[in-house]
Amino acid sequence: MALTAIEQNVLASLDEQGLIQTLRDFLRIPSKTGQEAVAQRWLAQRMQDLHLEVDLWSIDVPALQQHPDFPGMEVDRSQHEALGLVSSWQGSGGAGKRLIFNGHLDVVPEGDLTQWSHDPWGAELDDQFIYGRGACDMKGGLIAALYAIKAIKDSGVLLPGSLALQSVIGEEDGGLGTFATLLRGHTGDAAIVCEPTNLKLVPAHAGALTFLVHISGKSAHACVRLEGVSVLEKYLEIHRALIQLEKERNSNVTHPLLGKLDLPYPLNIGRVQAGNWSSSVPDELFFEGRIGVAMGENCQAVREQFEQTLNRLCQADDWLKDHPLEIVWTGGQFESGEIPLDHPLVQCSGVCLQDLTGQSPAIEGLTAGTDLRQLVNFGKIPALLLGPGDVRVAHMPNERVRTTDILQAARAYILIALRYLQQ
Amino acid sequence: MALTAIEQNVLASLDEQGLIQTLRDFLRIPSKTGQEAVAQRWLAQRMQDLHLEVDLWSIDVPALQQHPDFPGMEVDRSQHEALGLVSSWQGSGGAGKRLIFNGHLDVVPEGDLTQWSHDPWGAELDDQFIYGRGACDMKGGLIAALYAIKAIKDSGVLLPGSLALQSVIGEEDGGLGTFATLLRGHTGDAAIVCEPTNLKLVPAHAGALTFLVHISGKSAHACVRLEGVSVLEKYLEIHRALIQLEKERNSNVTHPLLGKLDLPYPLNIGRVQAGNWSSSVPDELFFEGRIGVAMGENCQAVREQFEQTLNRLCQADDWLKDHPLEIVWTGGQFESGEIPLDHPLVQCSGVCLQDLTGQSPAIEGLTAGTDLRQLVNFGKIPALLLGPGDVRVAHMPNERVRTTDILQAARAYILIALRYLQQ
Repeated sequence: MALTAIEQNVLASLDEQGLIQTLRDFLRIPSKTGQEAVAQRWLAQRMQDLHLEVDLWSIDVPALQQHPDFPGMEVDRSQHEALGLVSSWQGSGGAGKRLIFNGHLDVVPEGDLTQWSHDPWGAELDDQFIYGRGACDMKGGLIAALYAIKAIKDSGVLLPGSLALQSVIGEEDGGLGTFATLLRGHTGDAAIVCEPTNLKLVPAHAGALTFLVHISGKSAHACVRLEGVSVLEKYLEIHRALIQLEKERNSNVTHPLLGKLDLPYPLNIGRVQAGNWSSSVPDELFFEGRIGVAMGENCQAVREQFEQTLNRLCQADDWLKDHPLEIVWTGGQFESGEIPLDHPLVQCSGVCLQDLTGQSPAIEGLTAGTDLRQLVNFGKIPALLLGPGDVRVAHMPNERVRTTDILQAARAYILIALRYLQQ
Repeated sequence: MALTAIEQNVLASLDEQGLIQTLRDFLRIPSKTGQEAVAQRWLAQRMQDLHLEVDLWSIDVPALQQHPDFPGMEVDRSQHEALGLVSSWQGSGGAGKRLIFNGHLDVVPEGDLTQWSHDPWGAELDDQFIYGRGACDMKGGLIAALYAIKAIKDSGVLLPGSLALQSVIGEEDGGLGTFATLLRGHTGDAAIVCEPTNLKLVPAHAGALTFLVHISGKSAHACVRLEGVSVLEKYLEIHRALIQLEKERNSNVTHPLLGKLDLPYPLNIGRVQAGNWSSSVPDELFFEGRIGVAMGENCQAVREQFEQTLNRLCQADDWLKDHPLEIVWTGGQFESGEIPLDHPLVQCSGVCLQDLTGQSPAIEGLTAGTDLRQLVNFGKIPALLLGPGDVRVAHMPNERVRTTDILQAARAYILIALRYLQQ
């Protein structure tokens, strides 16, 4: 359907230059997971400048960690304040539904600087892209949502309902911020999580669990290496067993979105460290990785399957039988999350994007955990992933986002807010 | 044959208490490869106290590194003096042959301290063992030889020939010290290298080369891991290929000593490091190891075979074909070395040990490189490995040597010196 005059008017109220400028300023404030307080306070001030209601509070992390649904945490937060932040606008068309935008401002470390063509904290604009750690994951989406709310407010439209923007911390290492925000009582009728989806609709994502495994071998001088037990030879068997486990876990996936993917539930070994000298049989190995959690699958069941797979292998090995692996489940523990494809939020968002772009947006499943699962499973708030930028450059050197995609996301958020609250 | 009265008299001159005390004092002076100057000066002083002729000189390392036969070096020597040290006694029975004892005072690092039951620099005596880094490899043999010379000198026997003790540095990382000693002109008719052989005779040893290999992959977020190229999966193939190479290199070994061993020429991977994050496909891997050099084999031929094996594997792999491995030959480069089984030094040593112990000593080949190959190949000095202690505890936590083995080694050195110089 065509855009109404009112909708066109609100879309024209979008402060495009202010949006891009604010995003670039925001990207220059490093906000690595665990060290988000400066960026969070800065954003709270911008929200106040826009005359939104602002709730900025100090999160009692140790208290939350006692909660049975605590989503996991990896970084050390003892030296830095953990802040929650929600800004709201009540609308001007009377009480109604509440639509939430949710985005995290914590980012992963910049990694190897020599791999970056641009300063990860410079927010440089180059050939229509803004470069920087967090540009797509997900300061871009967060500021697009802020300026969508500002545009609606500035336009003077009568909005029958309210809008909220949740700026959360600690998403990358488990989801502390969204968990704290839900416990604080910030709720709503639906939520859009502004993760980078290339403006596709993502109503379902798998989960992931992170493991750390230690293997013990027996050292010996390389010149008598048969007298030792090399942890590398044990690792080779374990790696093969885990590849096989991944294969089994990805056969016959019937979920309508995840089942379409080449590898819905990846098992990745990301780090291996073994031995300390070329001429010793290495007697200690650590490997670290993540295993995908299937749609609707219980996290504990995944842990048990993983452990049983390795235990079976160990029982069949003369050395490992007596030198058991140590398996630790570290860091973020992400279960899956989803809402139905025919949920009004998905339907409405699809139509809005069709009207803005002339094309029906793709609907996809994601193989990575996000805060969506907390909103849906714990907060009982239907949620959809929708945001600017390509997840494939997230966490990578040269993370970047196209400025036109940022602006298009803001327009989509405006239109979805207008229409969803009027339904 | 029975010991003569003169031989018994010289053996009785061995200062057993002084030998053990000096060894323990010596073990308390850390002398890790590259940082040997304090220990070398201390030993030179002990030699002077015994009224031996002493040649202590500063080694011009950069000049030696230019030499085409330089044996390799791994540590940084820019901050520490490199000293050569030879003590000699002319004998008192007229000019004759010269017998050399050669031993290195550099030791490998102590490693993980939590694995030690005793202070690695404490030289503690516990249940007939002296514990400490270097106890068996090889300060024990070195001091046993020093006290063997002292006993012969002290006894007043008429020795027709001379004895020398070469205390060398940098054996562990290639053989700088023995190379420098040979270039200094210190030569002789035969040499005993006092490495820990459990008092077996070792007239032949294989060599070893140290390699460092770098693999490049392609990073990706674990949630789309098929878009990356995991260096671990490449490493698995490479590891298999190297195990196969080791197998080929150890089939049909016909050498009379090395051919008897289960694995004459081990190929060991001692260290692997890959990736930096559980949820990234790892795109960088280093592995480090050593490959045995067969008896009489040219080191360059081994390097070429190793590189060709990996190159063939890479050519068959779509990714590695375009992302070649980097192979560096680091550290010590040890060729093999040997003297015939019927060499007079071997024969004489065997008879001496038989007469001392009542048993004919085992004659074995060793799978690790030593300074023997420099003495034999470069110095043209026939040499034999013979010393106290078990090479299996060398380089390990709780390195130790039995005091009775130290004393027995000193007795063996005395008897061999007396008889070899009289032949």
